[in-house]
Amino acid sequence: MAIKKMGNQTVKFSNPPSIISTASIVGPKEGEGPLKDYFDIVLEDDLYGESTWEKSESKLQKKSVNNALNKASLSLSEIDYIFGGDLLNQIIASGYSARDLQIPFFGLYGACSTMAESLSLGAMIVDGGYADKVVCVTSSHFSSAERQYRFPLELGNQRSLSAQWTVTGAGASILSSNGNGPYITHVTTGKIIDPGIKDVFNMGAAMAPAAVDTIITHFNDTGFAIDDYDYIVTGDLAAIGKDILLDMTKEEGLDLTEKYKDCGLEIFDNEKQDTHAGGSGCGCSATVFNGYLYNLLINRKINRILLVATGALHSPTSTQQGESIPGIAHAVSICTNIS
Amino acid sequence: MAIKKMGNQTVKFSNPPSIISTASIVGPKEGEGPLKDYFDIVLEDDLYGESTWEKSESKLQKKSVNNALNKASLSLSEIDYIFGGDLLNQIIASGYSARDLQIPFFGLYGACSTMAESLSLGAMIVDGGYADKVVCVTSSHFSSAERQYRFPLELGNQRSLSAQWTVTGAGASILSSNGNGPYITHVTTGKIIDPGIKDVFNMGAAMAPAAVDTIITHFNDTGFAIDDYDYIVTGDLAAIGKDILLDMTKEEGLDLTEKYKDCGLEIFDNEKQDTHAGGSGCGCSATVFNGYLYNLLINRKINRILLVATGALHSPTSTQQGESIPGIAHAVSICTNIS
Repeated sequence: MAIKKMGNQTVKFSNPPSIISTASIVGPKEGEGPLKDYFDIVLEDDLYGESTWEKSESKLQKKSVNNALNKASLSLSEIDYIFGGDLLNQIIASGYSARDLQIPFFGLYGACSTMAESLSLGAMIVDGGYADKVVCVTSSHFSSAERQYRFPLELGNQRSLSAQWTVTGAGASILSSNGNGPYITHVTTGKIIDPGIKDVFNMGAAMAPAAVDTIITHFNDTGFAIDDYDYIVTGDLAAIGKDILLDMTKEEGLDLTEKYKDCGLEIFDNEKQDTHAGGSGCGCSATVFNGYLYNLLINRKINRILLVATGALHSPTSTQQGESIPGIAHAVSICTNIS
Repeated sequence: MAIKKMGNQTVKFSNPPSIISTASIVGPKEGEGPLKDYFDIVLEDDLYGESTWEKSESKLQKKSVNNALNKASLSLSEIDYIFGGDLLNQIIASGYSARDLQIPFFGLYGACSTMAESLSLGAMIVDGGYADKVVCVTSSHFSSAERQYRFPLELGNQRSLSAQWTVTGAGASILSSNGNGPYITHVTTGKIIDPGIKDVFNMGAAMAPAAVDTIITHFNDTGFAIDDYDYIVTGDLAAIGKDILLDMTKEEGLDLTEKYKDCGLEIFDNEKQDTHAGGSGCGCSATVFNGYLYNLLINRKINRILLVATGALHSPTSTQQGESIPGIAHAVSICTNIS
């Protein structure tokens, strides 16, 4: 069989899968941000009726999948696989959600790049004919992430200005072999790039070089020009990572200024909402893509985007052991029209 | 494109990928067990020259990938993707290994089912033409797992007899679109099955029903009979899980007694090595498959196996919050001959 790769890291689909439905659900703070009107559900209480934040996060995932199915008038039994992941140790938000959904489950971990990882693998599995429909879902939760990665919330620690605010939310996409788009046409899978950053309150700097590497590889592999895209959207580089990315790509001869957005800068109003550098977490790109960007695509406000979710592949243990924070970024090219 | 699924959860490959090379590397205790002659490298010291067990585990992965490449006279640049995962929080053993290998990386988390998850996704990506060659790799380490999941080793806690011993080791498989086998012909992807077990020292009981579900689904989906297989091999059900599996499958009309093996019971001599119920961990099925079983296949001692790696999708946090331990099992059908 002919290899479907373009260049070193990019796949071009011969039967581009359609994203036939999406859903997004966010916490109260995200529901006060600039994108509030684009989310399906805004929680009034981030515990979501559960006894713990971890159980709440799992419920967010399950609800987003069920919502995406309802919008497409599909039942759980029509889904072949679920590709899911999150930030919690042993991805328990995804595991307990998939337990209740009873769909064959591929667990993923790509830190905050997981939404793009799930779309990449899901698209290959649908394009290849191994599934007719799959669900891709990720989540994060401010409170479950804070206590796992940083400090107990009860301590009320002050946050440094380069720190980001983990988004409480989940987003789900249903990919189908049949549909009217938007279509996933290409995916560029990232290598891990480690700029040597050790400050866990400066994730944007740790992840930006990986995003730069994947974006440049994507353009080299595909031959696309910047003007082929309406937006090039990173996951959660936030204010500091954005500047680094724009500088680094400019040095490589790519001026992204006019086309560039970052989900972490879209979801919050940093000044009014005291979110410092901006949003982060698997739920950041998941809710911004499945809520806001998908809406723009299906309403033909935009026609083609490159979604580049970014992840930091470290843990509190690796940080304690003196390791740096390596980044990864996966790019998914999404277009309303493939004719 | 025609859907390549058989039944509900099984894929049959039209161009079955070849497992052209494998490698296995284990710790000192595994090197004293019954399979010692089948492993490529047996460490004398489980720190492997590193300052922490986590860094040692990451080095195990990297070494197993490089070893598998060397055996096949391949360079890193000839590998399209690496599918890797492990048991550590945020899969840092895999992340830091993939950082150094510089191959586009898909991070996975399926607990101890990860070897089968990586082979399943890797085989679909190669069969589908998205890659020519991929590496699938997983690891675990007794000491990094004990302190993360259970107690500090320094406490010297007594272990209950139903407890299992996490294997120190890593295994890697290289899948290729061209080769002379053994071939991955089918994969059956598991749903999460939760029997309600809450005892973290009885993982075999928590995972056995998932293995039963996947095995029965595999036979129903494919029409294979038990006699089509030389071995049906679970990942790490160990002594208690084995009995449960044999009882439950018998109730469903499948008598596996003559064909059944469990990697957790093969790797240690439980009585002599004081390993209680048997081995466990991602590294258990990874080293037993890539060391022992692959050797039997390429030397034509056996012709067809069903590898059913099993995982428990919980975390210390979910246990503390009163959740039960859900299991998952993915089955990979491997055959020396596809003519």
